[in-house]
Amino acid sequence: MILRNVLLLDSSMDAARACDMVLSGSRIESLLPPCTGEGEADLDGKGTLAVLPGFVNAHGHAAMTLLRGLGEEAPLMEWLQKRIWPVEARLGPEHVYWGTLQALVEMASKGITCFADMYFFMDQAAEAARQAGMRCALSRGLVGTDEKKLAEGVDLVKGFHDPGGLIRVQLGPHAIYTVPPGAFLEISQTARALNVGIQTHWLETEWEAGYIREELKKDPIDLIGEVGLRDVPFAVLAHGVWFPEDRAGEIAGSNLAVCHNPNSNLKLGSGIAPVPAFLANGVRVSLGTDGAASNNRLDIWDEMRTCSLVHKGIRRDPCSVRASEVLRMATLDGARALGFEDVGLLRPGWQADLVVVDLDRPHYLGVTPDNLCSSLVYSGSSSDVVGTMVGGKWIYRDGQVLTVDERLVLERAGDCRKELLRG
Amino acid sequence: MILRNVLLLDSSMDAARACDMVLSGSRIESLLPPCTGEGEADLDGKGTLAVLPGFVNAHGHAAMTLLRGLGEEAPLMEWLQKRIWPVEARLGPEHVYWGTLQALVEMASKGITCFADMYFFMDQAAEAARQAGMRCALSRGLVGTDEKKLAEGVDLVKGFHDPGGLIRVQLGPHAIYTVPPGAFLEISQTARALNVGIQTHWLETEWEAGYIREELKKDPIDLIGEVGLRDVPFAVLAHGVWFPEDRAGEIAGSNLAVCHNPNSNLKLGSGIAPVPAFLANGVRVSLGTDGAASNNRLDIWDEMRTCSLVHKGIRRDPCSVRASEVLRMATLDGARALGFEDVGLLRPGWQADLVVVDLDRPHYLGVTPDNLCSSLVYSGSSSDVVGTMVGGKWIYRDGQVLTVDERLVLERAGDCRKELLRG
Repeated sequence: MILRNVLLLDSSMDAARACDMVLSGSRIESLLPPCTGEGEADLDGKGTLAVLPGFVNAHGHAAMTLLRGLGEEAPLMEWLQKRIWPVEARLGPEHVYWGTLQALVEMASKGITCFADMYFFMDQAAEAARQAGMRCALSRGLVGTDEKKLAEGVDLVKGFHDPGGLIRVQLGPHAIYTVPPGAFLEISQTARALNVGIQTHWLETEWEAGYIREELKKDPIDLIGEVGLRDVPFAVLAHGVWFPEDRAGEIAGSNLAVCHNPNSNLKLGSGIAPVPAFLANGVRVSLGTDGAASNNRLDIWDEMRTCSLVHKGIRRDPCSVRASEVLRMATLDGARALGFEDVGLLRPGWQADLVVVDLDRPHYLGVTPDNLCSSLVYSGSSSDVVGTMVGGKWIYRDGQVLTVDERLVLERAGDCRKELLRG
Repeated sequence: MILRNVLLLDSSMDAARACDMVLSGSRIESLLPPCTGEGEADLDGKGTLAVLPGFVNAHGHAAMTLLRGLGEEAPLMEWLQKRIWPVEARLGPEHVYWGTLQALVEMASKGITCFADMYFFMDQAAEAARQAGMRCALSRGLVGTDEKKLAEGVDLVKGFHDPGGLIRVQLGPHAIYTVPPGAFLEISQTARALNVGIQTHWLETEWEAGYIREELKKDPIDLIGEVGLRDVPFAVLAHGVWFPEDRAGEIAGSNLAVCHNPNSNLKLGSGIAPVPAFLANGVRVSLGTDGAASNNRLDIWDEMRTCSLVHKGIRRDPCSVRASEVLRMATLDGARALGFEDVGLLRPGWQADLVVVDLDRPHYLGVTPDNLCSSLVYSGSSSDVVGTMVGGKWIYRDGQVLTVDERLVLERAGDCRKELLRG
């Protein structure tokens, strides 16, 4: 398959170049000078289509689409206790299946090719991801010391973890305030034994930082190692809002990545993560949307934009968090955070996970290879996406999700939502 | 003309209701129960189209579309002096005409029905607005003590100010750091004599606040009155980032409105305006995109979203700046800030300036009249706009700008951009 004469932007570099991209099976075979590839083109960019690595949504709770808009503008604990938890308690496997598919329809149309998902009934989420043809890192959310839940998490690994395919499984201790340190350590040791990664919330709120210090009598950064997170193959610390800036360097160059969820953190009033400090220290930072109940858009473009702007404003430094850094967070560093080693760059031998962006739009007028990256981040939006490919297969093209019946998904997800809200 | 069975959301209220909207000429004639209006419908909402008041972009520099993306990630003074001013010095009337039309194509497609524009060659901007069929408040940007420029501003009023039509003209003293207090006062007195409003930048940067205190030896809030801004019919203080919170009440209930430009302020590292304090004190706050060289999207939906989220995050209060407040800023309060008295609400007798939003999208699944407002602000985006009407005339519908030839505009604007950048 050939994608002819496209403007290729790699997340590792600032400038783009025109090329023919030759694909073979699920992978990129070669990159040739424009209009030199032999054979019929599956897509002809004619110099006005850009191709980027697919976006990686490195933290979220997909089926929370069914809870979108519940308890808007409520304080966090009221939101959780009065609006979210009572509805979540009624969630069944079918809800998670259709709610996840709804999320994947939205994500695919916005260029997301890979997503992390921590929730319940994750065999259903795996089935939804398989249907949608999307790459993913799934984890059963674990709370308390319930050995049954950990067994479910382990069963999920055994049943669905497929490092050669689209679906990977991680263990998902929810957070240090819902999983006691001893149980957390056991989960980490299990992940290590299974050779899988971990997804967890870490220092999302100031309350959590206080809980660790005052209730657990621990240091929030030292505790990362004490619960075994430094000994697993890789782990995502979601949010990291209250990570002390002067200790950012302590997780640089390690198996640990932060997942920054700027819109969720702003909306819930949690605060703003010290991303410039993470970047200055070489910490791997990925981007996530979080769940649709706390964002409410499953749109990595929005996270890129907010991430690129909010730190400039707060630090009063227009040079803070550059477009090229943000694009890398949304692609290569997201993939690495989730343990994918051949995803996130458009290079021969790597997975053909990519997004096609239409540059023939007013807001891209005058775009050049030199400023494509900043044009995408500052001027672009997800509505510019005209194609999404995962492992060499189109899952979205020209306004249509190709892998699932969008109408059916929305109808069933709508029924699930009504049923859940009826109580 | 009848818009049948649409979900009508007024910016004065939180909840929506289904109705038939009957239009007559440029105005709304009546609102009837759904499916009761006699005659053929120009649009049938079938319960899945929402109609909102048109968005008002209350501060910007339209033709800066031609400078979009120049000098990204540069400090403010370097950006202005090395990248923007040298190119602006080459601007001619034709550039402003096509650059403004490009901006209006973008704005129309995003539901903006009325825009403020402070720039040069404003007769050309007026011509562009007339072509596009958009409501506007135009001002010739005035700097220094140049009587010739003030005369141009006055000529613009005499030539184009039409309170009964689409185009209004204001005087536009650029800022207190570019117009000395005496000359500023003269401009205000002229505006008062002409019975027109003023558009100016006020307290955009910390540097400006320092300049007023240290160079002018003035208090930045007292100075508002001293340069005559309290004596004009109405005035927009654009940005207001460094307005002291404890003095917000001093401009409440007055002829003065703030225009909040959150994305521009973040991107340039200027800071974050004290919007919650303005709202708590009853100050009129409007929203603006600023110019495309410092944003880079001419999209009020993005301003609504950033405004609704950033203050929650900074104040760590999820209840701060509610969706209903943001929607009002983007519509009614924008119109009032610019002196339009029958724009910004969908009521009989008011102007038929409106936006049609398609709710049949995945992210609106389960939307109800009760949560329509928060769904639009938190989950929606400008790509949901399927129709934009100004004064009873469609200017955008189903992906097409109807009033100008979009291809021609982009071609000519592209030529202008090349010419300007070539130097």
